[in-house]
Amino acid sequence: MAFTRYLTLTLTTIFALTAQLAIAGPKSVILIIGDGFDDQHVTMGRNYLKGQSGKLLLDNMPVRAAVQVETVDADGNRLYVADSANTATSIATGTITQIGRIGVDAEDRDQETVLESAAKAGLRTGLVTTASITDATPAAFAAHVTVRSCEDPVSVFGTEKYGMQLPGCPQDAKINGGLGSIAEQLAEGPVDVALGGGLQHFVIADEQGTSALDRAKDRGTYVALTNDELLGYRGGDAPLLGLFDESTLEVRWQGTDGRVAEPVKRSFLNYIHRYLGSATPPDIMRCEANPEYGDTPSLKWMSEVAITKLSKDNPNGFFLMIESASIDKKSHDRDSCGSIGEIEQLEEALAVSLEYAKTNPNTLIIVTADHAHAAQIVPEPSLYRNAPVPIYSPGRIARIETREGHVMRVNYATNNMNSEEHTGAHVPLYGNDSAKSVIAPFMTQRDLYHAMMNYLELSK
Amino acid sequence: MAFTRYLTLTLTTIFALTAQLAIAGPKSVILIIGDGFDDQHVTMGRNYLKGQSGKLLLDNMPVRAAVQVETVDADGNRLYVADSANTATSIATGTITQIGRIGVDAEDRDQETVLESAAKAGLRTGLVTTASITDATPAAFAAHVTVRSCEDPVSVFGTEKYGMQLPGCPQDAKINGGLGSIAEQLAEGPVDVALGGGLQHFVIADEQGTSALDRAKDRGTYVALTNDELLGYRGGDAPLLGLFDESTLEVRWQGTDGRVAEPVKRSFLNYIHRYLGSATPPDIMRCEANPEYGDTPSLKWMSEVAITKLSKDNPNGFFLMIESASIDKKSHDRDSCGSIGEIEQLEEALAVSLEYAKTNPNTLIIVTADHAHAAQIVPEPSLYRNAPVPIYSPGRIARIETREGHVMRVNYATNNMNSEEHTGAHVPLYGNDSAKSVIAPFMTQRDLYHAMMNYLELSK
Repeated sequence: MAFTRYLTLTLTTIFALTAQLAIAGPKSVILIIGDGFDDQHVTMGRNYLKGQSGKLLLDNMPVRAAVQVETVDADGNRLYVADSANTATSIATGTITQIGRIGVDAEDRDQETVLESAAKAGLRTGLVTTASITDATPAAFAAHVTVRSCEDPVSVFGTEKYGMQLPGCPQDAKINGGLGSIAEQLAEGPVDVALGGGLQHFVIADEQGTSALDRAKDRGTYVALTNDELLGYRGGDAPLLGLFDESTLEVRWQGTDGRVAEPVKRSFLNYIHRYLGSATPPDIMRCEANPEYGDTPSLKWMSEVAITKLSKDNPNGFFLMIESASIDKKSHDRDSCGSIGEIEQLEEALAVSLEYAKTNPNTLIIVTADHAHAAQIVPEPSLYRNAPVPIYSPGRIARIETREGHVMRVNYATNNMNSEEHTGAHVPLYGNDSAKSVIAPFMTQRDLYHAMMNYLELSK
Repeated sequence: MAFTRYLTLTLTTIFALTAQLAIAGPKSVILIIGDGFDDQHVTMGRNYLKGQSGKLLLDNMPVRAAVQVETVDADGNRLYVADSANTATSIATGTITQIGRIGVDAEDRDQETVLESAAKAGLRTGLVTTASITDATPAAFAAHVTVRSCEDPVSVFGTEKYGMQLPGCPQDAKINGGLGSIAEQLAEGPVDVALGGGLQHFVIADEQGTSALDRAKDRGTYVALTNDELLGYRGGDAPLLGLFDESTLEVRWQGTDGRVAEPVKRSFLNYIHRYLGSATPPDIMRCEANPEYGDTPSLKWMSEVAITKLSKDNPNGFFLMIESASIDKKSHDRDSCGSIGEIEQLEEALAVSLEYAKTNPNTLIIVTADHAHAAQIVPEPSLYRNAPVPIYSPGRIARIETREGHVMRVNYATNNMNSEEHTGAHVPLYGNDSAKSVIAPFMTQRDLYHAMMNYLELSK
């Protein structure tokens, strides 16, 4: 009986294979990166959006893997926690590199990216993000600078952020014979569609008074600065550039009245001795609409526009990277609702991608993260709630009422100051049926580069 | 050409299938549980043992999934973080239950376990653990009590631990017509081989002066209390019970001089204002042999003994649960080296299991965790190291020199007191080739129960 069933299955597969060869069309890759979207965050998203026993769209994907993150420092030592620049560079170029590097290896040599190889082979290419389009993740697919903050013709000579002096990369400046800042490289590079934030970096002029936006317009790029202008886009061969915010796009959600995770309130006695007094956790909050969101284009809508532009009348396929960036940014801010809203945005972008792949089965869809992050789901209340002493996290906690009506407590406790740290766990990867031929259950981020190159039959 | 290759592959598969049917033998399950073994811990193990670009034995497993953990409280509310009792019960019985429950559902009704169903169908059964054999994870596969601390005939009436009063489960006491404490149920139940710690719970006598050890000996069980006595075991039909410690077995490794994670040392000025002074991280440590380990039987050795006893001259197959328990216990203690040594023990037990499956391909091998845990790999040094203020974790950190010679920093910051909390991420699952037919990329712990039951063709 087993054998009969096996033969039947074989015949079914042969028919399916034949059908697929007939209609499949050119090969394309849609790579969706949830920035900081580790297994704690995936679970936060599931618990909040679908309930503990529910399923994300992600959870229905037929391929699941873990992806190891690799980072070196200037001396070749391994660093066990990465940033978005070096990880996106590993995924985009198949190279291990240093923190802060964009499209260059650990010795600062430019590396051709999968997007550039795709463009060279005649495929169309796109970048969509809820961050600045010049931010590390999108930048690493289409630019080459030694420092991630070299986003425009001014910061390429150095800048300051969070009270820290950020080095520039003057050797990359156009005036010094380099490729220019990230914004300039994006404006002039092979990207057919780039949608996100980061307008501030495109309007800053260089010494000659030329901005990256000028450069884009000079080559006939259609520029949309509002959702309405994006709605008005009518297609065509010229590149499309959408810049819908000065920097990062507003996120969809926030906590009640904009609250984020807070420390427990310790009673006076607890300061005298940790066995004494009491510690009161912050009030429960709900996720609510972020009043600043306004008519910010959704990740779903930007993804739809990009997929349409990249696929229409295109016999050669495309490479598209879509980033839900503020899962990470809101985890730095200890804003669980902010992160969860952006996980919902990622799910919507995935839905659009899967819908496209339904009629275009030669589409490899990968969802992954670049690095893990600080947020941890912790017990509500403590596992030690019956202990006769005050028990609490030394960090900040958010107590979120989920859609199913129960309280999820999220802990942020990696950093005493204003921004949480990334963490070092390997990251999840999800793939559609097309991923079965190129994705192994365990890979490095370099392997993921090779998997995409192999799928698209590209070489450097 | 693709079609020719397809046909060749098909024929190869048919031959392989035929060969397999001839030699495969009865179906068995080896379920390996790393307690608290979440993706941060897997990565800690990989980084330390194999290097950042290396591979654990686990990483070569052909099946990878994520498993969602489900927990309810007494009122039916979802709890987003679990304990080892309710999760092991979900895996063992396919039921969502409350924290602390062993083999009973959320309404405290006994649920037949996969181990019990296997025994009923004539399969042999075994439990191997580095914890007390009466501890939550092994207990949930072969006992039924409403409170996990009901480990012996005295604690079944209530006990105290960590200054907390633990309720008993007097209705489960034999004197009250119940099945008895966990030790008593294990001594009299259908388990052919049980190896671990927990002697203290087997020597405590009930009101009639009878201990669980007496009960085991009365039915002819071979009892080994030392490694030598286990070495002297010569097989046979009678059950085998090994109790190699009063409670949890000693772990293999510790940090330098027994050190665990420590808080940073803040200078006086930093107590005046957080922007002032300095914060000095603890010294780097190495993992070293735990001097208390002595001749504790390794998880590998116990697994070998169990597999041999369960498989020898057995036409009916077996169910074996192997637990590396102190990944969790050492994470509670903020002892990264302790956890990592026990990850190495898990890898060794997996190697033994894979070796068995080589000649017994009808063996389903699953490696998974019961719940996530506190440890997080954090940056060494901080991502914000150039900020002009002291930056540090508010919790405790361990700085471990890995075998490849670089420093991995691990953060424990979920609890201000003496023991860290579990966390709520879904957990990893790894499977061998046999898992392909029953494991989906995303499952709940209840689904895992059904997968094992289906594989063994069992019903309740």
